[in-house]
Amino acid sequence: MIPDRSTDLANPFIEKFDLQPHRPGNLSGLKFAVKDLIDIQNYVTGCGNPLWKQKHSPALNHALCVDQLLDAGAQCVGTTICDEFAFSLYGKNFFYGMPVNYRAPLHIPGGSSSGSASAVAGEMVDFALGTDTAGSVRVPASNCGLFGLRPSHGRFSLAGVAVCSPTFDTVGIFSKSLEVLDKVAHVLLGEAESKGTLNKIYLITDVFNLCDAAVVEALEKPIAQLKKNYQVIAISLDEILGIVDGLKGCFECHGLIKNIEAWNSFGSWLQENPHSVSPKIKENFDYISSLDQRELADKIQLREKLRNRLNQFLEPGNLLCFPTAAGLPPLISTSFQELKESRYARRTLMIASMACIGDLPEITVPYSETNGIPVGLSFAAGHRKDEFLIQTVSQLTAFS
Amino acid sequence: MIPDRSTDLANPFIEKFDLQPHRPGNLSGLKFAVKDLIDIQNYVTGCGNPLWKQKHSPALNHALCVDQLLDAGAQCVGTTICDEFAFSLYGKNFFYGMPVNYRAPLHIPGGSSSGSASAVAGEMVDFALGTDTAGSVRVPASNCGLFGLRPSHGRFSLAGVAVCSPTFDTVGIFSKSLEVLDKVAHVLLGEAESKGTLNKIYLITDVFNLCDAAVVEALEKPIAQLKKNYQVIAISLDEILGIVDGLKGCFECHGLIKNIEAWNSFGSWLQENPHSVSPKIKENFDYISSLDQRELADKIQLREKLRNRLNQFLEPGNLLCFPTAAGLPPLISTSFQELKESRYARRTLMIASMACIGDLPEITVPYSETNGIPVGLSFAAGHRKDEFLIQTVSQLTAFS
Repeated sequence: MIPDRSTDLANPFIEKFDLQPHRPGNLSGLKFAVKDLIDIQNYVTGCGNPLWKQKHSPALNHALCVDQLLDAGAQCVGTTICDEFAFSLYGKNFFYGMPVNYRAPLHIPGGSSSGSASAVAGEMVDFALGTDTAGSVRVPASNCGLFGLRPSHGRFSLAGVAVCSPTFDTVGIFSKSLEVLDKVAHVLLGEAESKGTLNKIYLITDVFNLCDAAVVEALEKPIAQLKKNYQVIAISLDEILGIVDGLKGCFECHGLIKNIEAWNSFGSWLQENPHSVSPKIKENFDYISSLDQRELADKIQLREKLRNRLNQFLEPGNLLCFPTAAGLPPLISTSFQELKESRYARRTLMIASMACIGDLPEITVPYSETNGIPVGLSFAAGHRKDEFLIQTVSQLTAFS
Repeated sequence: MIPDRSTDLANPFIEKFDLQPHRPGNLSGLKFAVKDLIDIQNYVTGCGNPLWKQKHSPALNHALCVDQLLDAGAQCVGTTICDEFAFSLYGKNFFYGMPVNYRAPLHIPGGSSSGSASAVAGEMVDFALGTDTAGSVRVPASNCGLFGLRPSHGRFSLAGVAVCSPTFDTVGIFSKSLEVLDKVAHVLLGEAESKGTLNKIYLITDVFNLCDAAVVEALEKPIAQLKKNYQVIAISLDEILGIVDGLKGCFECHGLIKNIEAWNSFGSWLQENPHSVSPKIKENFDYISSLDQRELADKIQLREKLRNRLNQFLEPGNLLCFPTAAGLPPLISTSFQELKESRYARRTLMIASMACIGDLPEITVPYSETNGIPVGLSFAAGHRKDEFLIQTVSQLTAFS
């Protein structure tokens, strides 16, 4: 019987090492860590599961994104804990424990890139890479008081990164400083020729309405500040998408496609190794295996429609703005089951699904707090407008 | 010493089986085969290398695209030969031999999805799936007198498909009939709400100038026909992209990013198993391992610029039109080394790189022939306008 360590506090690292930069560059002097889904030469990528790690071979190369960062002068110091197979937004790993949320130690760090968020919040590294298929960078960044970027799908190379759901997988960045995040993103993106100009900022009313009062209240002041300097307009997602219950539409499309793809990536191994995974992840995949693939055609079709409408709306240099998570990060004492069944989890996944459905880049900004607990505010731009998003968010935060 | 079978003619299949449809549907009555990079439950995906196949485990699930087709009523009858690790445009597999080009048996079928093209051309199946990272569906389709679709990157799910270069990988379709291709694409795409209207067709002069006279002459008649019914305009790629030597730019960007990503996917295994691969693929990967990753940042940046310009140009419902390959398919007696060093290979890769760089969907149409040897003409539309492309090409070919 494998012991359940999911509520034990843990340090963020699975492996520690010292990969020196390949040469000096724009990232010289910066240390980073990477999630246990990103290949490091001579180490086994474990996908958050120690038995997967035991049964797989060491990577013979770094993931391409790691090479890009080492080439730009950064130093890589370790791999970090994550939720098993990158599933869940909690950051409680059954085998490795729960990396500390250094900004709010009584609260969960959030997942799945929990260790990457924790290592940055605890100032063990200057930045970290996570992966974000359904919110796994944005939510822990928000919980731990960090900037967190989910880039547009397709902008950062995924070579050497474990596949979860190819339609939605991205590599993302955590940092305490937007300047550092900008530098790191610059290395991974190259830089597009035209960044564009900010037109309007749209507050998504459906998301604000969905969130706990504590979150909405905490964000009142930064939003009032934004309104002083920019054109800030409230709009419902339904109006943008031209459908009823648009947020639920995004959530259901994203959930079905992502889950069925993740089954292809990990489900087979789980079936062959039912005792190598935690009871909770087994339950999760049992549920996924029961999904009706016949719904897939409709969901793919709806996804395309929603994706196009979001991008048409954002085309003239508009940003969406909304709380990153539906509530404050739950207490660490909350059980996995309670979390899973909580309105927090479902509502937070709904919010995070918007950028996934739209292929939008999204940054969460550590704009506020409630009794010392961080509250993140997100901005999302049109597909592939990552440079525009980062540049504009730099301007917005300079004012606040 | 493993014998070199690359010039032996072969039947297209690696494995034959009979996967019955999950239920009746729009594809009822249609048989298909899939390239040896696409997972079939209980079979080992071999990536065109029998020793890779020996050392890996059977897939526990079908790739998602296979499930989608079985769900829609199609029947899957086998996996097909491809170039080793999906490298090269020739279709000559060192271990399995060369699937017959049934439309021009003295000429190579083209690769890397050689067996899929061969099986369709030989009428063993109604359609087949290949993968296209650098032309591996479009070129063999052109050589074998077939319709071949490379969809927009990101439109068909890649779950359960071996990763070569995540930035450029796609699953594509071969068929003798555009109607069948349309039906199959419809299943894999869902269908977007608005297909759009054709504005102008642009003949890419740089590509025509690059091609052998035999190809250009063979396409004169269908192009004259197009001009009668549509607005057809000649333009250089350089004018569209706003740079000098745009085709070379596309080729070099695509080549470097693709090769460095492919090294991440397969290079490590090749290093550990140097005697399990053909001498030619070893040479290929030795070359890739020598590439200077420091050029990557510039190439990623240039790629983004070229991608954006191509898509801006295509936005108002325009199509690009150009020969699919630079020359007639070479004779089967041509050695691998001769092919590799030939102008045919380099120029054909240059042409195929445009759609990869632009994330464009491209269809090759079996419009013409020279002395019975097929010559394909390609049409490409803006990113994610796959339905528009297929619908428009259906109209164009109805006239000819």
